Amino acid sequence: MKVKGNIKPIEWCGSYVDLIDQTKLPYEYTTVKIDTYEKMGTAIKDMLVRGAPAIGVSAAFGLTLGAMSLENEQSWDDFYSKLTKIADYLKSTRPTAVNLKWAVDIQIKLVESYKDKSIKEAIKALEENSIKILNDDITINKNIGDNGAVIIHKGARILTHCNAGSLATAGYGTALGVIRSAFANDPTIQVYADETRPRQQGARLTAWECIQENIPVTLVTDGMCGYMMSKNMIDVVLVGADRIAANGDAANKIGTFTVAIVAKAFGIPFYVAAPLSTIDTSIESGEGIPIEERNKEEITHINGKLVCPECVNVFNPGFDVTPADYITGIITEVGILKPDYKKSIKDVF
Amino acid sequence: MKVKGNIKPIEWCGSYVDLIDQTKLPYEYTTVKIDTYEKMGTAIKDMLVRGAPAIGVSAAFGLTLGAMSLENEQSWDDFYSKLTKIADYLKSTRPTAVNLKWAVDIQIKLVESYKDKSIKEAIKALEENSIKILNDDITINKNIGDNGAVIIHKGARILTHCNAGSLATAGYGTALGVIRSAFANDPTIQVYADETRPRQQGARLTAWECIQENIPVTLVTDGMCGYMMSKNMIDVVLVGADRIAANGDAANKIGTFTVAIVAKAFGIPFYVAAPLSTIDTSIESGEGIPIEERNKEEITHINGKLVCPECVNVFNPGFDVTPADYITGIITEVGILKPDYKKSIKDVF
Repeated sequence: MKVKGNIKPIEWCGSYVDLIDQTKLPYEYTTVKIDTYEKMGTAIKDMLVRGAPAIGVSAAFGLTLGAMSLENEQSWDDFYSKLTKIADYLKSTRPTAVNLKWAVDIQIKLVESYKDKSIKEAIKALEENSIKILNDDITINKNIGDNGAVIIHKGARILTHCNAGSLATAGYGTALGVIRSAFANDPTIQVYADETRPRQQGARLTAWECIQENIPVTLVTDGMCGYMMSKNMIDVVLVGADRIAANGDAANKIGTFTVAIVAKAFGIPFYVAAPLSTIDTSIESGEGIPIEERNKEEITHINGKLVCPECVNVFNPGFDVTPADYITGIITEVGILKPDYKKSIKDVF
Repeated sequence: MKVKGNIKPIEWCGSYVDLIDQTKLPYEYTTVKIDTYEKMGTAIKDMLVRGAPAIGVSAAFGLTLGAMSLENEQSWDDFYSKLTKIADYLKSTRPTAVNLKWAVDIQIKLVESYKDKSIKEAIKALEENSIKILNDDITINKNIGDNGAVIIHKGARILTHCNAGSLATAGYGTALGVIRSAFANDPTIQVYADETRPRQQGARLTAWECIQENIPVTLVTDGMCGYMMSKNMIDVVLVGADRIAANGDAANKIGTFTVAIVAKAFGIPFYVAAPLSTIDTSIESGEGIPIEERNKEEITHINGKLVCPECVNVFNPGFDVTPADYITGIITEVGILKPDYKKSIKDVF
């Protein structure tokens, strides 16, 4: 299956959002019509849409849909009070990625500035701003891509974990955006996508995205990084992030920290690519980042089929935190932040 | 499903072997009748039986079955020449585990000592020696278990990779043998089994074996070791081995080296449990250990179902080599070998 043109995981259609159902990829390419904020919340929870920037954009539209359902409220106060409840609900759907909170908070602030105008006008503003957040995200990712491409040398073999591609954003991608930009200059680069258990975003999404763009990609399992790095098969690691603390500690999909430790053991550069909206300066260090624990079935079942004894205990954290001293640089839309991150992050904000 | 009594992956029934079909576990507990050396070769290749000690024992019986098929050869020379071809075939079925070669070579040496006797007597001797190799393996594993149990402190939380249990041996297990012995003294220990992609021996076999014996076990994915160790959830790592070089470098299931690197980063002891027959003193270092590359479908399919884009490239090494300086100790039937392994291994042989 090849998708013509750019992959657009989130598309605004005036009164609803079309989301690519990422749980069905790469087997099926289908979109789901999301026309209520509840449906958006469920889509985020169930990971039809995932990736920190993508769920930020989705939540912005989710709040717009929520506001639309409140169009006929009698008073501004009723409208506002119900809308903030919807905002709280949307923010609660996934705890780790900060972009979700970031986008919803921006929208709520915008609504507040319309207090003296009509509900209709506020809704219109929310809609327009959602579209702006979506378009900005694509622009930001292209800048991340261009800023990051300079660190990818000719013929580089790049390991990436999970999916930080078009599907994780409004389009283009963060880590995979850097790979896209690098590939545009040098078609000899190679990507190693690890499968990223339990939800296999590497196998299902990153491999699929690379194939769409003819970027050479090889699928490996999560445990192989030690072997590959010891055999000099990897030149650089590139990953996305779900939340970055003020000191540079970066939360990302479970398994990222393991790759970072192995990269450090072999002196292989390890880069995080993320928009500034992923940096949460209110949190001092990774210790403060909440780690979502997800359900048992993500590990015990694959494609709906049991892969272990049914009664086994499971531990399923959705994310881990890579401490700043494992990170060679944080590639953002304004440039590559370098250690000391406390200072370089402070300088940017 | 609970199996009554001890798990016996390999059972000799006079003229054939009953093998537990480990590819079907934990969904189905079935045995397969292996009555020719060709069937044994295929069972080893297709991993109906796997684990270095188990395939050693199986190959000893495989050669016995081969010899039985040559009972009516006209001359000793015909018998011997055909049997060595069978031996070569059996040794070629899987390249990394040295126990396979070790067991077949022992059997061939035994046959040679019967040169001046009858073919029938040679066959009888092979059969008896296969049974001895099987029984010795269980005894050896119990000794490994008892020798290793001393390093497991009260309430220890043990991470193990792949399956080095009863199913990987003639019974009792190596790494899981140590866990069995430790559990007999202290029911508060806890096992973390990582699933061990691509073939999920951790999820399918180790978790299942622990449940059979009521040993507390939690299933995790391969990428979680960094997170768990950073959160102080693991006290010790215990794994098996498929071949250990004269300097202590240890080949084991792919992903082992990654766990070892992470354990070292956190100062967590990393032990290898293996019989002396796994040590290949003819090989100076891990560099000399052949690493089997297995087929693409092991990664692209789970339970027969595609889990990625069909056309993706795959890299699938079956093993990796953990260098000696990552290994705290090698637990054997004669005691725990410590660094300098070159010296401690030489002293034992």
